[in-house]
Amino acid sequence: MREYKSYFRPEIEAMAGYTPGEQPKVSRLIKLNTNENPYPPSPKAMAVLKDFDSTRLHRYPNANADEFCEAVAKRFGISRNMVIAGNGSDDILTISFRAFTSEKLSMACLEPTYSLYKELIRMQNAKMQTIKLNTEDFSLPENFLEQSQGANLLIITRPNAPTGNSFPLEKIREICEKFDGVVLIDEAYADFTSDNCMELAKTMPNVIVSRTMSKSYSLAGMRFAYAVGHPELIKGMYKLKDSYNVDMVAQKVALAAFEDIDYLEKNVKAIKETRARVANKLKSLGFKVIDSESNFLFVSPPDGDGENYFTELRKENIICRYFPGEITGKYLRISIGTSEEMDEVLRITEKIYKKS
Amino acid sequence: MREYKSYFRPEIEAMAGYTPGEQPKVSRLIKLNTNENPYPPSPKAMAVLKDFDSTRLHRYPNANADEFCEAVAKRFGISRNMVIAGNGSDDILTISFRAFTSEKLSMACLEPTYSLYKELIRMQNAKMQTIKLNTEDFSLPENFLEQSQGANLLIITRPNAPTGNSFPLEKIREICEKFDGVVLIDEAYADFTSDNCMELAKTMPNVIVSRTMSKSYSLAGMRFAYAVGHPELIKGMYKLKDSYNVDMVAQKVALAAFEDIDYLEKNVKAIKETRARVANKLKSLGFKVIDSESNFLFVSPPDGDGENYFTELRKENIICRYFPGEITGKYLRISIGTSEEMDEVLRITEKIYKKS
Repeated sequence: MREYKSYFRPEIEAMAGYTPGEQPKVSRLIKLNTNENPYPPSPKAMAVLKDFDSTRLHRYPNANADEFCEAVAKRFGISRNMVIAGNGSDDILTISFRAFTSEKLSMACLEPTYSLYKELIRMQNAKMQTIKLNTEDFSLPENFLEQSQGANLLIITRPNAPTGNSFPLEKIREICEKFDGVVLIDEAYADFTSDNCMELAKTMPNVIVSRTMSKSYSLAGMRFAYAVGHPELIKGMYKLKDSYNVDMVAQKVALAAFEDIDYLEKNVKAIKETRARVANKLKSLGFKVIDSESNFLFVSPPDGDGENYFTELRKENIICRYFPGEITGKYLRISIGTSEEMDEVLRITEKIYKKS
Repeated sequence: MREYKSYFRPEIEAMAGYTPGEQPKVSRLIKLNTNENPYPPSPKAMAVLKDFDSTRLHRYPNANADEFCEAVAKRFGISRNMVIAGNGSDDILTISFRAFTSEKLSMACLEPTYSLYKELIRMQNAKMQTIKLNTEDFSLPENFLEQSQGANLLIITRPNAPTGNSFPLEKIREICEKFDGVVLIDEAYADFTSDNCMELAKTMPNVIVSRTMSKSYSLAGMRFAYAVGHPELIKGMYKLKDSYNVDMVAQKVALAAFEDIDYLEKNVKAIKETRARVANKLKSLGFKVIDSESNFLFVSPPDGDGENYFTELRKENIICRYFPGEITGKYLRISIGTSEEMDEVLRITEKIYKKS
């Protein structure tokens, strides 16, 4: 019998692989570790799923999710050829990395930011340049453009993860104007902030805005996202996507959710209110709380020990996400759950930091 | 305003992009162009969709479709770490190309075969070697191994598309033993044939077998596939897949379909019976019919003009798939529809070839 021998590309062989946030099976747990929305999706979306005609499933889906993309085009006043749908933001990101990075073409992104980018760039065997955010408040550094220079793809996560803060729109516009390459603005959390960069994607030939249905639309389980940009950018991305990348059921359910703006607004409003309440309470307990424009908080306990806070909450069946590191290690990222879940977080937090 | 300028990798810029089979909206059409199953999925799978608890959709799905993969492992008597699930076979193929091909690592495949491979290899900016099948019956050539030499990834489509025939299992085993690289056996149509290569994936360290739920399980609309291979091969493929590549609903529905073996067998039996009946009738009309081990037929009309046959059927609202080319152009690929749909195909075919 032949022995196993690796035929993998050396760069793949060298990878450890990305570890997504834990999806624990314990039902008693308060799960605040993957920035999920604590509320179910729009009742209209759930009704579409319930009524779905499954006898049609033997047919392939519409290859490009046309109905959904047309709804996006209508909402933002753009043409259909400026929109592409993806099997979650991961799919949009994978397509973008494959389109714009290679051994010769590097990527620049913030530091800290969404840790998946680091894995995607390894798969391309491409170089990554990191643009260090100011350590005090995770704002953009003065020399941002210098730090991004030479990259072919620049990813700006706005609001950023895991820090939760946003960046001034005018500053982003200036960066997009001056950067000689494609700027992908990852707006996974845009619905939780007061402004967004859609206008830049609509008007600038080198800007892509990516949005997901996983967060504000409560459809993480369904895998659906979309991106908007110049027709030539989108056309190139279509070449790289899998032929039928989003399934028939997801297309219908995502469309119904996307169209239910009232529900979205109500959902987002509830999360923002809870976010403000929790932030204020934590501040009163001596926490440092980064200004959040997302559905999570990045907070540093009074003793600056993020890991200990993580561990103490975990003992009480509350799971958050801790990011080791000189700077991020001082913080803990807490997704905004229901009002009741956050009451429990605050109750336990008070207990932990009164003891010390 | 800045002008558009391409930042795409040159090889992506040069691509035209893959065109999947037409998904026409006309409902009167008899659609036999994308090898879909003419029957709905298992009633048990449809029931799972109907009863799906959509209030859970705000949560991320299980990242690796564990329940489904465990069912696969159990069915084939292998360990869980020998199975990976994909968002359709396209996802499995994309992962494999990214894992095993690059500018330095080439791929070999049959000619003719599934035309998507050609696009996937371009995305990798890698070389493709084609192994020409014997023109008379699309059987494997004597010098197969010589023609595949030097490639890092060899794809054997068995049964092959668009030709529909299979290849001797012992010959495939010999190829896998001798080939110095990974052999990916694309078994999209394996349930319609009498044997398959699962045993090779179970026992040989360089063989991956890929299966889809789109064809025999009637779930093309759902996007679900899986691959089986040596734990080290599968482990490497996991690094490349999107974190949550298959959604929560698809995982449940695919599992229910996979477990309903009685329905699968009934469905496959009906298609095979129709296939035999149509093949015999076409032969009696003077057609050349390639021995099919799949859910479609590759047939050459008496005048050897595949394009004309396509056009004539299209006029009568029957859509099949025509592949231009010196050899393939003599044929038409006809998916096996319901018995009634195929009666109509035969009726029209008789009309066309009596006239001439």
